[in-house]
Amino acid sequence: MRTDVTSLVDSLENMRQEVDASLHELIQNELNSGAGQVAEEAGRVLLAGGKRLRPLLILLAHRLAGGADDGEVLPLALAFELIHTATLVHDDINDEADERRGKPTIHARAGQAKAVIAGDWLFVQGFGLGGRYNESIVSLMARCCANIAVSEFHQLDHVLNLATTPEDYLEIVRGKTAGPFAAGCHAAGLVAGLSTEDAEALRRFGMELGIAFQLVDDLLDLRGDERMGKPRGADVYEGKMTLPLIHALTLSHGRHRERLAEMIESFKDSDFDELMHLLSRSSSLEYAEILVRTHLERAQAELDRFPQSDAKEMMLLITQLVMERHA
Amino acid sequence: MRTDVTSLVDSLENMRQEVDASLHELIQNELNSGAGQVAEEAGRVLLAGGKRLRPLLILLAHRLAGGADDGEVLPLALAFELIHTATLVHDDINDEADERRGKPTIHARAGQAKAVIAGDWLFVQGFGLGGRYNESIVSLMARCCANIAVSEFHQLDHVLNLATTPEDYLEIVRGKTAGPFAAGCHAAGLVAGLSTEDAEALRRFGMELGIAFQLVDDLLDLRGDERMGKPRGADVYEGKMTLPLIHALTLSHGRHRERLAEMIESFKDSDFDELMHLLSRSSSLEYAEILVRTHLERAQAELDRFPQSDAKEMMLLITQLVMERHA
Repeated sequence: MRTDVTSLVDSLENMRQEVDASLHELIQNELNSGAGQVAEEAGRVLLAGGKRLRPLLILLAHRLAGGADDGEVLPLALAFELIHTATLVHDDINDEADERRGKPTIHARAGQAKAVIAGDWLFVQGFGLGGRYNESIVSLMARCCANIAVSEFHQLDHVLNLATTPEDYLEIVRGKTAGPFAAGCHAAGLVAGLSTEDAEALRRFGMELGIAFQLVDDLLDLRGDERMGKPRGADVYEGKMTLPLIHALTLSHGRHRERLAEMIESFKDSDFDELMHLLSRSSSLEYAEILVRTHLERAQAELDRFPQSDAKEMMLLITQLVMERHA
Repeated sequence: MRTDVTSLVDSLENMRQEVDASLHELIQNELNSGAGQVAEEAGRVLLAGGKRLRPLLILLAHRLAGGADDGEVLPLALAFELIHTATLVHDDINDEADERRGKPTIHARAGQAKAVIAGDWLFVQGFGLGGRYNESIVSLMARCCANIAVSEFHQLDHVLNLATTPEDYLEIVRGKTAGPFAAGCHAAGLVAGLSTEDAEALRRFGMELGIAFQLVDDLLDLRGDERMGKPRGADVYEGKMTLPLIHALTLSHGRHRERLAEMIESFKDSDFDELMHLLSRSSSLEYAEILVRTHLERAQAELDRFPQSDAKEMMLLITQLVMERHA
């Protein structure tokens, strides 16, 4: 018998609140031991809300893998959220973003120097928690974080590069966004004592879900969504080559392609309607939507090998929520 | 019988070269596995030379503590050097420094965005290596790195703050410079299986040596030294309140203090002679030199409890080399 959806949503929300409470406690402990402003600034961003998808997936993957005690995997779940937030803080410096999760960024509040350091502090807190696990988990985390950096370099090299291919895009997304989902789920499975093969399935689940998640982010950036906590079109302003743009550039010709290139190279708010029109001419948003669905279906299929459980239902629910985010 | 100094210097240099070779190998492995430009840029700074004091002290502390196999502590030694280099890369962004170890900084070569990420990559490599050790070592490392960030926040708050006290200064130095020396030696002792009490002595050794090291750095910045690989007076230009300045401000009165404050607030190259004159009026360089000696003597005294060995001789030699650096 399948648990009904409302109660799954409630359980998920309870778990999210528990993650939030643990993060609050971590920051409070650091403040109590004298960390001062760096913990305040980092804490403000960390605790500004967020879906907590990474820690939730890690907790759920651990349960799915037979883990009986969330406490065994909680430091790992928090570590991934801390490291994720560290990368956001550093990204925001590089993107010169003023807002994140609807709040002023650290560099907007306290200056660039402190933002760099606050990001480092979050990294350190994350690795401090992750370092409690055995060498295979630690090296999995380190490899994942190193790949984030490698992919961010590639992303910077592709800024305003109109020749960026879908392959370039996917490689960057795999490293930067999907990699941490994959590593988190993989590691959670290993912590629960899963076989290599089954842990690999969790890794693939995380990777597919992460790719879909990034594609939805790209779509929401173009369509605008107040849940993003940042202005519509931020990616376009920053010259990020998202999949809809890459797809449209590939399919457009003549004056349409010229105009598209022109808009991407010096985007203005007043260009939005025209950009959306050109994207719809090449069905580029639909194309991205189809890919979202494909990757989510692949993610779901990876869970087939695991027996029915509430954890599995909640993981499937998360894939549905990602799907519905862009609808 | 004490080993003669020349052979100790040679042994130390051999160890330094082995550390260099291991760092080279690490970067090469990353390049081989596709890390690309981030590893090149980070590697360029990492491999630009440097005294490798932190890893050398960690290797020596491990031997002093009875460790028979350098290999057991080498990842830890490299981890501290990687993390140290990460902080240098991020500091250089914040200080807008164009040179480091006589070479262009990453942000000068590749831009700020890549410098932030390359620093993160170095942190991640460091924690990946450090994470191989047990929880007590990892938490010692994480605590040390968090303190670096906390101290850097304090240091930023004290920029151009003429009311900075020697206590403020020492607190910052303990966190930012001496803390990693202390944590490294402490951890090396624990890896070798030292008692808590003896490992604590190694921690204090590192702390005292680290304080002396920073004081010498402050002196060299004022006196100018091509070994620094950065221009003379960089600290003064950046508004860093180093101990000689703090001391001189405390002891000076009337128009001397006024002039001193004026120079610190808007330093120009042409002010150097006058600054040095005012510092000598208050014997502020001598004061810093005396403190260097005091802290080095305390460092040396912490080694008394350990039996005679080549490792001990080399650690004492390092304290002497720090002493002679400013002479």
